[in-house]
Amino acid sequence: MVIKGNIISADRFGEIRIIKNGYIVIKDEKIANLSDILPFEYKDDELIDYGNKLIFQAFSDMHLHAPQFPMLGMGYDLELLDWLNTYTFPTEAKFSNVEYAKKTYKVLAKELIKNGTTRVAMFSSLHKDSTLILMDELDKAGISGYVGKVNMDRNGGVDLEEDTDDSINDTIDWIKKSNFKNIRPIITPRFIPSCTPKLLKALGEIAEKYDLKIQSHLSENISEINLVKSLENVTEYYKAYEKYGLWNNKTLMAHCVHSSEEEIKSLRDNGVYVVHCASSNNNLTSGYARIRYLLNNGVKVVLGSDIAAGDKLSMFDNVVETIKASKARVIIGDNLAFLTPEEAFYLATSAANEFFGEKPGFAVGNKFNAIVLDDSDLLNTEKLSIKERFERMFYLREEDAIKVVYSNGKAVYNSKN
Amino acid sequence: MVIKGNIISADRFGEIRIIKNGYIVIKDEKIANLSDILPFEYKDDELIDYGNKLIFQAFSDMHLHAPQFPMLGMGYDLELLDWLNTYTFPTEAKFSNVEYAKKTYKVLAKELIKNGTTRVAMFSSLHKDSTLILMDELDKAGISGYVGKVNMDRNGGVDLEEDTDDSINDTIDWIKKSNFKNIRPIITPRFIPSCTPKLLKALGEIAEKYDLKIQSHLSENISEINLVKSLENVTEYYKAYEKYGLWNNKTLMAHCVHSSEEEIKSLRDNGVYVVHCASSNNNLTSGYARIRYLLNNGVKVVLGSDIAAGDKLSMFDNVVETIKASKARVIIGDNLAFLTPEEAFYLATSAANEFFGEKPGFAVGNKFNAIVLDDSDLLNTEKLSIKERFERMFYLREEDAIKVVYSNGKAVYNSKN
Repeated sequence: MVIKGNIISADRFGEIRIIKNGYIVIKDEKIANLSDILPFEYKDDELIDYGNKLIFQAFSDMHLHAPQFPMLGMGYDLELLDWLNTYTFPTEAKFSNVEYAKKTYKVLAKELIKNGTTRVAMFSSLHKDSTLILMDELDKAGISGYVGKVNMDRNGGVDLEEDTDDSINDTIDWIKKSNFKNIRPIITPRFIPSCTPKLLKALGEIAEKYDLKIQSHLSENISEINLVKSLENVTEYYKAYEKYGLWNNKTLMAHCVHSSEEEIKSLRDNGVYVVHCASSNNNLTSGYARIRYLLNNGVKVVLGSDIAAGDKLSMFDNVVETIKASKARVIIGDNLAFLTPEEAFYLATSAANEFFGEKPGFAVGNKFNAIVLDDSDLLNTEKLSIKERFERMFYLREEDAIKVVYSNGKAVYNSKN
Repeated sequence: MVIKGNIISADRFGEIRIIKNGYIVIKDEKIANLSDILPFEYKDDELIDYGNKLIFQAFSDMHLHAPQFPMLGMGYDLELLDWLNTYTFPTEAKFSNVEYAKKTYKVLAKELIKNGTTRVAMFSSLHKDSTLILMDELDKAGISGYVGKVNMDRNGGVDLEEDTDDSINDTIDWIKKSNFKNIRPIITPRFIPSCTPKLLKALGEIAEKYDLKIQSHLSENISEINLVKSLENVTEYYKAYEKYGLWNNKTLMAHCVHSSEEEIKSLRDNGVYVVHCASSNNNLTSGYARIRYLLNNGVKVVLGSDIAAGDKLSMFDNVVETIKASKARVIIGDNLAFLTPEEAFYLATSAANEFFGEKPGFAVGNKFNAIVLDDSDLLNTEKLSIKERFERMFYLREEDAIKVVYSNGKAVYNSKN
């Protein structure tokens, strides 16, 4: 299959590659060729011509909470720890009901695809069966990535706390039952205040034994950091993960708003990914993560919507939130440039490719994940450069601008359907 | 005519009034009655039952630049003064062409109404004829409010600068030709760096002679403030308006991000309105206005989208931007609470009513301006309180959520059309 249009990819941080009226050849889910002239050998392949439309890389949302989806858009009046106890834990507790989970997660999967998010690293709730339902719904919708059954055996209240042994056994059972085409299990201690040392130790061992990736939260909020330091008797938050084998180059750590110099150094030296959640960090008044500084210091950064603490599921919107948060750092007085649309787009797409074993951009050999965008109803489209149209798509999209979404070489969303 | 639904109005700052399944009676453009039971005398009037839908007050956008609409969503990489010279002035210069103006302003008027903005205070360009076209298009679309031909006789470059006498004469001519049903002229010196003392003096006199309202920009950016102080030899920015009779309780001043204590005192004592433009202030890294502090000190505050420095035309989105900017103040270290959705909604609606000679909320005697919202496609609507549904509407709206918009008692937008 060959796809034609104005192709835009984030090949390097800060630079987009534009191929006007270019061709992408897809073979068996993957990109076989990318060029401005269709090579002769593909001239008889089926061609889909998207004309003047824009073809973006699809997005990777590397931190979001599926069971918080029902509370999206509400309850942004508290800081992290109170917000968890007041709104979040009661909402997540409802996912003990598998019927409710199935109904809710079907909608979530559909919304993700509709917004051009084809890859995720996602938190489920602590419920094993509902987690398997979530994985199934995402897989069926055409989403790839990682889903974690959450572990929490302390500070969860009456309705959202596991017995330590049950938590460990359920995790192993869940891993064994996780047989999906494109969705894999990921070890997911909620965060240090939710997990006893015994549980954390077991999770580190399970991650190693089954060769699994790891995700959690780090240095989001000052009260949280102080709580962790007192609970685990550590000088730095990250050491509470490190000592249990939960700190390596397969680890995603959300937030890192208040990471110290020592923590930043350890993030870099261990190849841990920072998942930047700009919208959430503002909504819960956590602070503004120093993304430019982290990048300048060699830390890997990807983006997360962090719904429902973040209020925007669309990664187009989260690119804007990322730029806005970087401008907040400038306003605060950082002597570092804010992020450009090209840079934030890279973080929302190519920066996560390594986590999925791929190269940046629409590299040959990558699975084909893309969004076809129609901006013909906006003002003056014909007079603008592709680069201007690229920027505008983040800030201003007509309803129904996303026409087609491709995941692993297949059209999984079509606005006409 | 009687309208039935879940009625939500901002009757007082920080408090919404909710009338579940309530009735609004409309007579001759105005609200004649508001209650939870339909008074007997109206029982034979035509009734439109919106069922479980939400009926919000419509929005007032008190600062936006019509000729910047074509650049919406692009060019957010510069600070104010460079941004004006690089992007804005060339874009505005195109409105010397009245055909281009007519085509563009028709789209703008339609987009405003579609988003539930029924009242505006708007900057046009310096072009007299295109300004009359803008006023006509807004009027025909059902929008009320104020539009200003911009005055600028210095620092506009080759394409966007007037001769001083021409600027004065054109302004008088434009005022005399402004005969529209619901759109009135407003005196609009762009800002101090764009206007010579002679022009400012004349504009102050014209405002007084014709009893006109006034709008301009104030203390948006540090470089701008320093420029004004050196150009006009004043110790405070506002004094450059005050000395020319452009500083009274009929004046709207956009931004006020960096207003000093003395300027804040003068804003309050003279009843000048601050138009808060949260999105713009972040995009151009101008800073975060101290809205809670201004309000606590008795300054009147309304909201503006400030397109195209602001990237969001929808005032729903600008309510969110306002909340987010107030959270930025908390993150920066203000010891003042951030704004709630109820508070930001008041600023986007009722706070401007006084400027239009009305009382807050859906007061009897106010013209009926309202938005009918359908949130039935969102998750769990039936389980939520009206207050939760109110908050969610700002953060999360389905495409096509706005079903009907009323302006001055008439349906001016209907999603089915």
